[in-house]
Amino acid sequence: MSEVDHDELVSALLAGKHRALARAITKIENRSPGYRELVSNLHRHTGTASVVGITGSPGAGKSTLVDKLAKHYRDRGETVGVIAVDPSSPYTGGAVLGDRIRMASNVGDMDVFFRSMSARGQLGGLSTATADAVKALDAFGKDRILIETVGAGQSEVDIVKTADTVVVLVQPGSGDDVQMLKAGILEIGDIFVVNKADMSGAAKTVADLEEMIHMRDNPTHGLQTGHHGFEIPDHPDTADPAEENDRWEPPVVETIATAGDGLDELLDVLSAHREHLETTGGLDRNARIRAAEEIRQHLRSDAATLLEEEIDRHGGIDALAERVADRETDPYTIADEILDPIREAIGTRSDRQE
Amino acid sequence: MSEVDHDELVSALLAGKHRALARAITKIENRSPGYRELVSNLHRHTGTASVVGITGSPGAGKSTLVDKLAKHYRDRGETVGVIAVDPSSPYTGGAVLGDRIRMASNVGDMDVFFRSMSARGQLGGLSTATADAVKALDAFGKDRILIETVGAGQSEVDIVKTADTVVVLVQPGSGDDVQMLKAGILEIGDIFVVNKADMSGAAKTVADLEEMIHMRDNPTHGLQTGHHGFEIPDHPDTADPAEENDRWEPPVVETIATAGDGLDELLDVLSAHREHLETTGGLDRNARIRAAEEIRQHLRSDAATLLEEEIDRHGGIDALAERVADRETDPYTIADEILDPIREAIGTRSDRQE
Repeated sequence: MSEVDHDELVSALLAGKHRALARAITKIENRSPGYRELVSNLHRHTGTASVVGITGSPGAGKSTLVDKLAKHYRDRGETVGVIAVDPSSPYTGGAVLGDRIRMASNVGDMDVFFRSMSARGQLGGLSTATADAVKALDAFGKDRILIETVGAGQSEVDIVKTADTVVVLVQPGSGDDVQMLKAGILEIGDIFVVNKADMSGAAKTVADLEEMIHMRDNPTHGLQTGHHGFEIPDHPDTADPAEENDRWEPPVVETIATAGDGLDELLDVLSAHREHLETTGGLDRNARIRAAEEIRQHLRSDAATLLEEEIDRHGGIDALAERVADRETDPYTIADEILDPIREAIGTRSDRQE
Repeated sequence: MSEVDHDELVSALLAGKHRALARAITKIENRSPGYRELVSNLHRHTGTASVVGITGSPGAGKSTLVDKLAKHYRDRGETVGVIAVDPSSPYTGGAVLGDRIRMASNVGDMDVFFRSMSARGQLGGLSTATADAVKALDAFGKDRILIETVGAGQSEVDIVKTADTVVVLVQPGSGDDVQMLKAGILEIGDIFVVNKADMSGAAKTVADLEEMIHMRDNPTHGLQTGHHGFEIPDHPDTADPAEENDRWEPPVVETIATAGDGLDELLDVLSAHREHLETTGGLDRNARIRAAEEIRQHLRSDAATLLEEEIDRHGGIDALAERVADRETDPYTIADEILDPIREAIGTRSDRQE
């Protein structure tokens, strides 16, 4: 891509051309040549959108809820961008039919920009691509950006961390969800939604969630009492009052997304969390944490590419591994042989010697 | 540590001094200065031990089984080293009592060398430390090395991959174990043991495991038939006869470790897997795969250290993140500012430009 094309794409995107936005996100998703410069140029135009991440296990009703939220924001005259991410799907193909059906529901309303992304098998690639796509939507001028992600585990956590507010959807009575919450999702939820609240077991799921949130926020109580509910406040003096005020107690909201029940309450809670972030400096703090994570992620990814090139320059991994297996050398010696010239070149080697 | 001390430690270890072995493993576990040179020097003396990894969820009976195996090998006149790893425990402290009780059971028999290791919160640190400790035991001359690991997930998988043979212990009727098997343990098991085979549900667990193993090794069948057991051989011609001979069908063995029941069968199966590895070239193949993984792991870890130093030289992560949050610059630009001098120094930059 020539410099002129590149500048044109950025200009068209900033001027609000949806085709340019679509092209930019495709470039970002495919890691096409020039995507880094593109994201670099867009970065300075970001910072105005409100970004909400929505996660939960398959079938919890994420898509329906996202559609309802998007419609609500549109009715208020705000513009919306949706990025749906499926870390478990290696190909975009599988999501196409679903995309078309959902896009059709927004026909004639180009201000809901819907885009799905899927895993490319790159380590950390999907969360980086999602963060970059959010920047494109933000720079474009979308007021609201919704990140929807299916799947479970670390990739999901990394993806929704791009958002200012993380909503975790739970389906009543599903043992899977409790497992998932234990695996790291509980820690990142700002708002919990028990969807399909008309299903049996909803009240118990709400109660379970509230207990888990309480234990998350009061870990010493949790450790002392386990699940027995027999609580002795052990160190009542240790709570920092300043921190206490800054603390957000994640609410549990019940919804029936298909009928729109509970949507108003969820919208209120979303606003309240946004306000909480603004008044406590949480928005800025999160932005800095995200920036640090992005810097480290890019460095890790670029360094990994660099290391693979260096491995190849030293004969390739197979030849190196064979020499180790034959006891001619060992892994630490090889690592030093590859990295010592780099250490010397950047002049840090003398600092590192014992 | 001076060079003389270092050489003395290596010599004493190779001469069979248990105190030197204990000191070496402590140095390895703590990543004390000089641990790399130590492991480098030991590496060329490795390659004679038979290494078995034993994993499974807490309470499955790993410790009992490991003790029985160790005793059996000792009765045959072989020397044994045991490394028990707990990725879920951040401190060694918690394991001390258990260690003492178990070490007491081997009092007077110093040829069962028992050592527990716990997580240090380092990325990949525990599997690297385990692999290094195995090298110390191997170089020392232990005939049999048993790696026992509790916990679940990726860290467990990484740890037992150090072994030539991986034994997965499953407790009858535990839903947890089935979940765990789905999460990656199934793929790495060479031998499955249903321990506590006198518990109700043992027969069903054996049947479930055999079905899962069959589906693992015949993935297309699995995809076609799901759990319905209605199998149509779709492409009978695609099986490679050479590969077919090299294939190891993981057996499921029933044991009652406390009583020693099923131990003989397990020992036979362990021997059979070892023989299979030897006759098919699997031992060498695995050694090369492990060597490649160790080289990459060391490079990743060292590069991460190097990157943190470079981040500090560029003002520190907090200052960099603040400049990004303030839109003065962006994460890709910072990554390039840090890595471009390195790329130029090692002369690969010209190859990388588009």
